[in-house]
Amino acid sequence: MTEYSELRLLKGIRSPEDLRRLPKEELPELADEIRRYLVSTVSRTGGHLASNLGVVEMTIALHRVFDLDTDRLIFDVGHQSYVHKLLTGRAENFSTLRRRGGIAGFPKTQESVYDAFNTGHSSTSISAAIGIMRADAIKGVDRRVIALIGDGALTGGMAYEALDDVGQQKLPLIVVLNDNEMSISDNVGGMSRHLAKMRSARGYRSFKRRFSKLLKHIPLIGGWLSDRFEGLKNRIKYFILPNVLFEELGFTYLGPINGHDIDSMTEVLEHAKQMDKPVVIHAITKKGKGYAPAEKDPEKFHGIGRFDAETGETKKTFGNSSVFSDELCRLAERDKDVVAITAAMASGTGLDSFRERFPDRFFDVGIAEQHAVTMAAGMAIAGVKPVFCVYSSFLQRGFDQLVHDVCLQGLKVVFGVDRAGLVGADGETHHGIYDISYLMTLPNMKILSPSSTAELRACLDWAVLENDSPCAIRYNRGVLPEREMTGDVLSWECIKPFRSVCVIATGRMVDTAIRACADLNVGLYNARSIRPMDEAALEKLSHAHYVITVEDGVVNDGFGSQVAAYMSGLGSGTKVVSAGVPNTVIEQGTVDEQDCDCGLTEAQLKETVMSCMGGIYV
Amino acid sequence: MTEYSELRLLKGIRSPEDLRRLPKEELPELADEIRRYLVSTVSRTGGHLASNLGVVEMTIALHRVFDLDTDRLIFDVGHQSYVHKLLTGRAENFSTLRRRGGIAGFPKTQESVYDAFNTGHSSTSISAAIGIMRADAIKGVDRRVIALIGDGALTGGMAYEALDDVGQQKLPLIVVLNDNEMSISDNVGGMSRHLAKMRSARGYRSFKRRFSKLLKHIPLIGGWLSDRFEGLKNRIKYFILPNVLFEELGFTYLGPINGHDIDSMTEVLEHAKQMDKPVVIHAITKKGKGYAPAEKDPEKFHGIGRFDAETGETKKTFGNSSVFSDELCRLAERDKDVVAITAAMASGTGLDSFRERFPDRFFDVGIAEQHAVTMAAGMAIAGVKPVFCVYSSFLQRGFDQLVHDVCLQGLKVVFGVDRAGLVGADGETHHGIYDISYLMTLPNMKILSPSSTAELRACLDWAVLENDSPCAIRYNRGVLPEREMTGDVLSWECIKPFRSVCVIATGRMVDTAIRACADLNVGLYNARSIRPMDEAALEKLSHAHYVITVEDGVVNDGFGSQVAAYMSGLGSGTKVVSAGVPNTVIEQGTVDEQDCDCGLTEAQLKETVMSCMGGIYV
Repeated sequence: MTEYSELRLLKGIRSPEDLRRLPKEELPELADEIRRYLVSTVSRTGGHLASNLGVVEMTIALHRVFDLDTDRLIFDVGHQSYVHKLLTGRAENFSTLRRRGGIAGFPKTQESVYDAFNTGHSSTSISAAIGIMRADAIKGVDRRVIALIGDGALTGGMAYEALDDVGQQKLPLIVVLNDNEMSISDNVGGMSRHLAKMRSARGYRSFKRRFSKLLKHIPLIGGWLSDRFEGLKNRIKYFILPNVLFEELGFTYLGPINGHDIDSMTEVLEHAKQMDKPVVIHAITKKGKGYAPAEKDPEKFHGIGRFDAETGETKKTFGNSSVFSDELCRLAERDKDVVAITAAMASGTGLDSFRERFPDRFFDVGIAEQHAVTMAAGMAIAGVKPVFCVYSSFLQRGFDQLVHDVCLQGLKVVFGVDRAGLVGADGETHHGIYDISYLMTLPNMKILSPSSTAELRACLDWAVLENDSPCAIRYNRGVLPEREMTGDVLSWECIKPFRSVCVIATGRMVDTAIRACADLNVGLYNARSIRPMDEAALEKLSHAHYVITVEDGVVNDGFGSQVAAYMSGLGSGTKVVSAGVPNTVIEQGTVDEQDCDCGLTEAQLKETVMSCMGGIYV
Repeated sequence: MTEYSELRLLKGIRSPEDLRRLPKEELPELADEIRRYLVSTVSRTGGHLASNLGVVEMTIALHRVFDLDTDRLIFDVGHQSYVHKLLTGRAENFSTLRRRGGIAGFPKTQESVYDAFNTGHSSTSISAAIGIMRADAIKGVDRRVIALIGDGALTGGMAYEALDDVGQQKLPLIVVLNDNEMSISDNVGGMSRHLAKMRSARGYRSFKRRFSKLLKHIPLIGGWLSDRFEGLKNRIKYFILPNVLFEELGFTYLGPINGHDIDSMTEVLEHAKQMDKPVVIHAITKKGKGYAPAEKDPEKFHGIGRFDAETGETKKTFGNSSVFSDELCRLAERDKDVVAITAAMASGTGLDSFRERFPDRFFDVGIAEQHAVTMAAGMAIAGVKPVFCVYSSFLQRGFDQLVHDVCLQGLKVVFGVDRAGLVGADGETHHGIYDISYLMTLPNMKILSPSSTAELRACLDWAVLENDSPCAIRYNRGVLPEREMTGDVLSWECIKPFRSVCVIATGRMVDTAIRACADLNVGLYNARSIRPMDEAALEKLSHAHYVITVEDGVVNDGFGSQVAAYMSGLGSGTKVVSAGVPNTVIEQGTVDEQDCDCGLTEAQLKETVMSCMGGIYV
């Protein structure tokens, strides 16, 4: 374990100015201290490790070359901002990483003046940077803006929309491309291939082939030129090749650079700083650099729970993602039309097992949720059964495609909406609390919200084998309880019989509600289908005096609102009290702490129900 | 006027087979017939003209080379599918274009087996095509899939996500790039510049400069090579240059081709058909080709209402977009921090006048709503006041950015949500009926829904000058009435005093409600702020027996649901009846017809209110 007090150099650095004062010779030791401290802290807190180990030298160089008191450094995704945080006065409290009230796992403007823009999702940095630069131009502010983006984030279309804009307008943005040869899981797509070509010079070889062929076609001197051409290769390689794609988009390309060489990085950044036009610096790094277990398995150490810092060993956790993926494999075995889609989250969604067993029916499109959704629609229209497993908060990226391509056409696409509800330590950008609301209004969409592993499996079976329209199955991070399932998927289960006060819970909140209501004389229903709602159950519930709805989604315009609208449409006079997530920003912490913020703990729920019981006026 | 009966050749073509039987020599006359018929029909129906005039020859060639009984042709956006429709048995009924029950302005699988995938929004075609190809591979179906995409649609990031996927996986997709040198308004961005370079050979010249410089550096033979190099230019131009970007992404590039030369197009398509790898065919076309007024002003003739076919003259319509833009110019004059953003819709949103007056504070990012939203967030964090004018249905494309970049950070970005509600002839893909629902749950977001031009101006003033958080102002296509405004933006206006039956209407429905309630003894409130709701007004309304809410958005999980949830939270026993758009697919027609589908006409609303009045049980 490396404690803060042992950090001879890092202890003395509380601002970029401190860092710039450090003699150059001390920097390798500083990098080493940072690495040891990262491993030690993250082994205790969990978090993003491999990507941070990969940007240690790059971040030091950025801090020394630019003046972050005025210049603006935007992190794409932001999980690689730990080193930056350690260098800007947050080393001492770093053990509070990702905890309630502690250091966030992503940049937070509220946390430090050196965090320029909040992130969490992928591919936003260049757009944000452009916005700042254009505002600066209007306000007459003179500073440099740098976007630090990984090669994985470049698979997201919005990064390209922004690159396109920078290049055309010749905005003097500095893009540092942190190319670690993988996004969260494997990297995919033409851009990745393009970058790989730069690295391997395969691109150069293919250029050479084309060029030699061309030269041979030139009358008379062609053969001679073609022979001579061999001799040009090294020069051509560095002058022409690596820059084609970025230069065609309007950037000056600098690289590739060894991202772990502080001197090279400093030099190229100094050079970029002097240029008054769009520049991309292509830095090659190694994810997990300097920590053997992470170098060996960077995917495992991308986002990780607590682990043994000596060995890198973790406790294997078993969650809903595994249950879902396991059931999906079972279906795929049975039905050759079942295919699985992920957007760079094979491991997170549990689909890595599907990928192993059915490689021909597994599609990882990169961090490209928009493409994933519309591709799924195309698959459905051509007769196969696509299941797209995606975190709830990332499905937001494909919202228009959900509306336009899937729902309006009523196509059978199944969405495994993972990480639905409150997600804990990743904080506000990663909560899956909007899905009920944004899915509820779409034509043809069904929304299932299982409360147990048995229901989770049953929902998937039903969506794949019986249902013939778009269907979203939402399930939380962690694991649902193993409770026996009775009845069918679309009907609400009556767990405790009807009383004048009834609770309707959905998804993981059913378990909380069962515990909260154990000693109370109230009815309890499990709404495993959010849409359609079980109208027979609702009609019965309209005779209650109080109905308390419980959901782990934003409460206004969610499940509870729908129940309320139903009741007030009947004019039954039933009071509907909706428990759920308020539409404020719910900060990082444990899920229990976040439940507590929202009044969703067992004790709070019990209190709510009891106060309703006290309020009956019959 | 050109009538169907006069179309000597087109009359005989009801399927691709008929077209293939037509002697090659007749094709130019067929093209001419199609153009005349397009101009004549669209002058009477309104619709997308210029883009269709640009693809006449290209579509004929596609139909002759491919067998669309099995092969699949996907149109991007789809507004350029008229020619395809004329060639597939829909010429006779073409005068019903965009009318209730008539031919749709976009591809519709329900309309013809030759329409492979429904579209309407931009940049989806390649993703849909990939989905179909992957399904075909699993199902063992052997056919070709072609995506026809304009250069404008390539500014949308999801097209790039898909290109990336095709290139990497070497899927034998044929992409026909219809390069008409403009998207809906001007084209922007690096890709556009890249295409322009291909066209103008400027790219070639810059390559030449770089290459000559390189050659000069080669010892001994450098000078000689450099001189000789001039002689290679024509060959290099066609062998190396135009393909760099697409080839780097993994495509074989064919082009540029004159898209108006049926023979060339046929030849290059035949060539592509024989290739078993990703191909892009770069066809240069002229938007509006063959109709002088449209060639001269293709932006005007992109999407157009009725016009005089002889002169191209239209009646200038004055809508909410102009009111908004006019007020925005007034604010920009007063406040140097006000900036305007559009995603390729300068003309549609009325911002062309802002562009003229404040070119330095106007930003058209191309069809790139995601980038636009995050860029706006970057601008706001750096201290200017961005106003993003965007059609409601296109803002869906930036939903995640709204959540992640704007709302979670609580940044002051103003959204001019144009074309909110039912939009008429463009049909289901273009309705702006989901915004209330998807905006309602987001932290920090305010939603204003003015009912008159005065309120529209006041809402914008308030959002720019007084409010300090994200704010969406939604307004319909067409123009709001000119009614005097009393009270402030956030308070609900009491138009008719409280009664036991009260109507709460919002946006353009207020005018309908005023007319519907004119003779009725009911209360009437104008909810110009949807969020926050006016709690004082709501408290008062909770004493009513019936509250009827009226909105032109999807009624479940919309404004009405919120009112219902409020009432049932109080347990007031007030019956809330919500009038609005059901969450089914509302097809093309006039807005009046669509209102009628939804029970939102004056007469229907009056009936609803009267039936509530009859239902009072006091």
